[in-house]
Amino acid sequence: MNNKQLTIIKIGGNVIDNSENLHQFLLDFTALPGDKILVHGGGKIATELGESLGVEAKMVEGRRITDLETLRIVTMVYAGLVNKNMVAQLQGKGINAIGLTGADGNIIKAKKRPIIKVSPSGGDLEGAEIDYGFVGDLDENSVSFEMIDSLLKAGLVPVLCAITHDGDSQLLNTNADTIASAVAVAMSSLYETRLVYCFEKKGVLKDINDDASVVREIKAAEFEGLKADGTVQGGMIPKLHNAFKAIKKGVSAVYIGKADELNELANGIFGTKMLK
Amino acid sequence: MNNKQLTIIKIGGNVIDNSENLHQFLLDFTALPGDKILVHGGGKIATELGESLGVEAKMVEGRRITDLETLRIVTMVYAGLVNKNMVAQLQGKGINAIGLTGADGNIIKAKKRPIIKVSPSGGDLEGAEIDYGFVGDLDENSVSFEMIDSLLKAGLVPVLCAITHDGDSQLLNTNADTIASAVAVAMSSLYETRLVYCFEKKGVLKDINDDASVVREIKAAEFEGLKADGTVQGGMIPKLHNAFKAIKKGVSAVYIGKADELNELANGIFGTKMLK
Repeated sequence: MNNKQLTIIKIGGNVIDNSENLHQFLLDFTALPGDKILVHGGGKIATELGESLGVEAKMVEGRRITDLETLRIVTMVYAGLVNKNMVAQLQGKGINAIGLTGADGNIIKAKKRPIIKVSPSGGDLEGAEIDYGFVGDLDENSVSFEMIDSLLKAGLVPVLCAITHDGDSQLLNTNADTIASAVAVAMSSLYETRLVYCFEKKGVLKDINDDASVVREIKAAEFEGLKADGTVQGGMIPKLHNAFKAIKKGVSAVYIGKADELNELANGIFGTKMLK
Repeated sequence: MNNKQLTIIKIGGNVIDNSENLHQFLLDFTALPGDKILVHGGGKIATELGESLGVEAKMVEGRRITDLETLRIVTMVYAGLVNKNMVAQLQGKGINAIGLTGADGNIIKAKKRPIIKVSPSGGDLEGAEIDYGFVGDLDENSVSFEMIDSLLKAGLVPVLCAITHDGDSQLLNTNADTIASAVAVAMSSLYETRLVYCFEKKGVLKDINDDASVVREIKAAEFEGLKADGTVQGGMIPKLHNAFKAIKKGVSAVYIGKADELNELANGIFGTKMLK
């Protein structure tokens, strides 16, 4: 059992896109005791910049294709604008934040996603080959927990964006939920680690229209049933997949809920708790 | 006398804007022995992005005004696109680079430039007040040499871009030459430090049109004379000012020259050497 505690918080667009929400979140994040890591995506800003530059978002089966132009945009927005403003704001609150992509310090090395044949459920696209472009997938060796640990020991709070690299000069776009899960798993070899996914709802809801219907705990074995009955659908499926992966692979606690109750969420008072 | 040696290299647009030049430079940088730090500006990419977004460059007396829109652009380009691609390329060459703004790890804290009254030589603008916007100036306490040292000790190679912060949540745009000089001075309390400015010429030229007319050494006392006779003019004046500041304040050696002869330049075989 590790004595040192580490909290990993992942935030998305509903926090990043609203300056008041972001300010309040960063105050709450600052107040969290102990070692911590922040993981963020990019929100609407990348989409808006793409529109301003005439770069259209390319989607296949609901997933964004990261061509070279899109990679440039997400690198500018995630690693530059969003990450550095967040770091400056944390510094202003007394937190010694350091903003990083996976390339920095080689902390997260990804593999470019191979060209994928569309599954038989792909309808008209069945059998077609999809090149997701500059998208990076992670495996169990992707995260350099030693380097992250040495940054934590230097008193730093890593702020990680959704950009990684392949170790061979190429930046890659990697899902921020996946990064949070992989970092939490890797760090759990050294720390008692909790992982908190913040999103727009108060947790997994039994009734999507009723904020009071939060499912307080979900066992991994219940996941398939919740997908089948529609409680978990759309973007929640990969998020919960990442959450269960973390709890199965050594992370002490995984919570999903709303960022505006961060302390309660990170202590399991509100939100949905994942169980093995 | 410090035994540990540290080399700080500053590159500008003529390296950054040309992918072949950049590739060759990064190879040469990789080959340099010992601890090292890379400092870079942004080149033409920020100007081009500004044009694409309809944000006009605002200049007063030849100096760029950094309004909020411009700050967003330079943060995206310097800290995101340019910095992270450079880090990924260095990683691909086996260098454990870490890309940083001054906000990251609070390594460089700047002061927002106050509104300045135009000097009597300002012609039509005489007496007018100029607000340079989000521009950060450095002083002798700006650089956290302890934090940079702890990154070097962790085996990392810092890659610093021309963005700093004020410690109170605000990012600022700071001249990359000035950053290189201030970092070199601060690090010289711990290391025997050499500072290398790479630019488009082979050194300070006696005749601007003759690459063979490199002035091999300049003493600080000669600076005023070289300004007066026009050998040093325009953008070279603040560059040399930063160079002399470094050599006067404890940096062991300061060189100015062309990046394509990096090893020779960093060892004083080519280029112009600054003397106290």
